[in-house]
Amino acid sequence: MRIDENRAIELLTKHDKILILTHTNPDGDTLGCGTALCHVLRNMGKLANVVNSDEIPRRYSYLFEGLEPLDFEPEYVVAVDIADTQLLGDNLYAYKDSINLCIDHHGSNCEYADELFLCPEDGAAALTIYRLIKKMGAPITKPIANALYTGMSTDTGCFRYSNANSEIYRAAADLIDLGADNPKINTLMFETKSPAYFKLLQEVLNGMRVFCDGKCVVLKVTQEMFNRTGGNSEMCDAIAAMSRQMEGALCGITMKEREDGHYKFSLRSHHPIDSAKICSQFGGGGHMRAAGCEPEGDAEKALQRMLDILCAELSLPKETIV
Amino acid sequence: MRIDENRAIELLTKHDKILILTHTNPDGDTLGCGTALCHVLRNMGKLANVVNSDEIPRRYSYLFEGLEPLDFEPEYVVAVDIADTQLLGDNLYAYKDSINLCIDHHGSNCEYADELFLCPEDGAAALTIYRLIKKMGAPITKPIANALYTGMSTDTGCFRYSNANSEIYRAAADLIDLGADNPKINTLMFETKSPAYFKLLQEVLNGMRVFCDGKCVVLKVTQEMFNRTGGNSEMCDAIAAMSRQMEGALCGITMKEREDGHYKFSLRSHHPIDSAKICSQFGGGGHMRAAGCEPEGDAEKALQRMLDILCAELSLPKETIV
Repeated sequence: MRIDENRAIELLTKHDKILILTHTNPDGDTLGCGTALCHVLRNMGKLANVVNSDEIPRRYSYLFEGLEPLDFEPEYVVAVDIADTQLLGDNLYAYKDSINLCIDHHGSNCEYADELFLCPEDGAAALTIYRLIKKMGAPITKPIANALYTGMSTDTGCFRYSNANSEIYRAAADLIDLGADNPKINTLMFETKSPAYFKLLQEVLNGMRVFCDGKCVVLKVTQEMFNRTGGNSEMCDAIAAMSRQMEGALCGITMKEREDGHYKFSLRSHHPIDSAKICSQFGGGGHMRAAGCEPEGDAEKALQRMLDILCAELSLPKETIV
Repeated sequence: MRIDENRAIELLTKHDKILILTHTNPDGDTLGCGTALCHVLRNMGKLANVVNSDEIPRRYSYLFEGLEPLDFEPEYVVAVDIADTQLLGDNLYAYKDSINLCIDHHGSNCEYADELFLCPEDGAAALTIYRLIKKMGAPITKPIANALYTGMSTDTGCFRYSNANSEIYRAAADLIDLGADNPKINTLMFETKSPAYFKLLQEVLNGMRVFCDGKCVVLKVTQEMFNRTGGNSEMCDAIAAMSRQMEGALCGITMKEREDGHYKFSLRSHHPIDSAKICSQFGGGGHMRAAGCEPEGDAEKALQRMLDILCAELSLPKETIV
C-alpha cells in the first residue's frame, strides 16, 4: 500500500524496536539512508539497528561510527532504497515477507512492503529521508548530515547527473551548514582510487568495444583482470560511470564477471535510452539512467540480445566500429 | 587598488563601451564569467564584447550563442578570473597596462588592474559575478544562468572539491531554478570524452610514476602521444584531475608538452599541499588545490626540483615506488 509522508512519520514515531534493511552490493545512498535513519531513531530513544547482507566496503565505514549494533528483538522492519526483495541479498532474504515499511525512490519499486513511501522524483532516497526527518522535527546532527549528504552525492554522481535538481542542491547546502564534511566525503567517494584501480582501468580500456554506430560502449571486467591487477568488483561502479562518457555514446554497458563465472551487466545511459526498461527485459531493474541485471546463460549471447534491443530502439546497425 | 562590491557595481553601471577580457587556455569559469557579464551589460543597453587570446574550445561554444561581436571602440576594459597579466595570452597582452577593472577570486591576483574586486573565498569567479549581478538587480536570463552555472560547476569539479561551500550550492540551485540546464552542461563538461581521450588516457596511465612514498603521482603527456592517439591538450584538464585521485596521493603533477617542446606543469593537491605556493617557485600560480607553471629548462630536471620541494614539505624520501 502506498502511503504519504505523514503516515510514514506516524509509523516511524510509534514503533520502538526497529530493524533497518539496506540493499545488497551496498552504495552510498542505501547506507546513508540507513545510518541516518538509525541515528534519528536512536536519538528519539528507540532501539534501532541498520543491517546489510554483505560486508560493508571500507570506504563507507565512517557512516557506521557510533552505530554499534544493539541487542534487541526487532518489532518493526524498515527497508530503505530497496526496490525489490531480490536486492535484500542472501543474508536478509528471510525478511522478504515481513517488511513493514519501505522508503524508496526507485520508480521500479515492486511494492513488497506492507506500506510503501515512494518518491520517484527524488534523485536519491537520502533526499526522501531528509524531508521526512525535517518534517519530523528531529535534530540533524553532524553524523546524520554526513550520512544524508553521502547518499545525495553518490546517487547523483556528485550533483552531476540529470537526477540532480535544485531541491537536492539546496538540501546539500543545508546539510553542509549542519556540519556535513563535503570535501572529505567527495574525496573518499570520487577522488580516491587505488593503484590497482588504475591498472584495472587500463586493462578494461584496452578491451573497450563500441557498437551501434558509436552509440553503445561495452566494457568487460573479468575475474582474470581482478587477479592480474589486484582490482575488485567495488571498483566497477567508477568504471560503469565511465562507460557512457564516450562522445556520442548514449549507452554504456559494463559486464562484470562474478566469482561463479556469471556476469552482472550495469547500464548507464543518456536520453533517450531507458536503462531500467532494457534491464527489466533481462530480469533486472533500476533507474532510467542507471540500472543493472544478471542475464542467464552465456554473457556474450546476452550482450548480443541487448545490443539488438538497443540498436532497434535507436534504428541503427549493430556492427562494431572500434 | 582593492575595491568593494558597491564600487564594482558603480563602475560597471557608469561605463557604456566595455571590453571584457578572459584568460588564455580558457576554462568554464573565465568564459562563464565573461559571457554572463557581457549579457548583463548588453541587456542594460550598453555595448559590450567578451574576448580571449585563444580559439574557444568547441565544448564552450554554447556560451557564446547570441553574443556575436559588436563593432565599437572600447572605453572601459574589465578582466574576469585573470590573476596575472601573463594569463592574457599573446593576442590580449597589449591590454596589460590599460585594464580598468578586474573581478577575480584568485588569492594570488597580482593587482595589475586600476581597481580590483577580489573575493578569494569564492570557489569560482562565477560566484563573485553572480553576487554582483544579483546586487545590481539585473535580470538573470537563461543564458546568464547557464554561463554562471558553467563557471561554478567547472571550477569546483562539479561541486566536488573543497572550494564548494554551501553558498555555491545554493547559488547553483537558484541558477537551476532560473533555467540553467545543469544536466546538459555537466554532461558536456564532465561526461563527454572522445575516443581519442580514452586512447590518450591509456598511454598516460601506462607511464604513471609515483614518488615520495606514494604521496606524489606524476603523469606525462607528450606531443608524440597526442600524435599517436589523436588527443590534444584540451584533454589534459581531465587527466590532471585524475592525477591526485590515487589513494594516498597528496599531489598530482601533470606534465604537458607544448608544441615547442616546453612543458607546462599542472598541480592538483590535497591538504596540506599548497599547489599555488609550489608553482610560485617556478614562476606560476593559481589556487591552493589547483595551480600551474611552466618551468624553464629541462622538464625532467624541473620535476626533480619540484619533487625535492614536495618531499621536503612532507618529510619523505623521493624514491619511485611504482
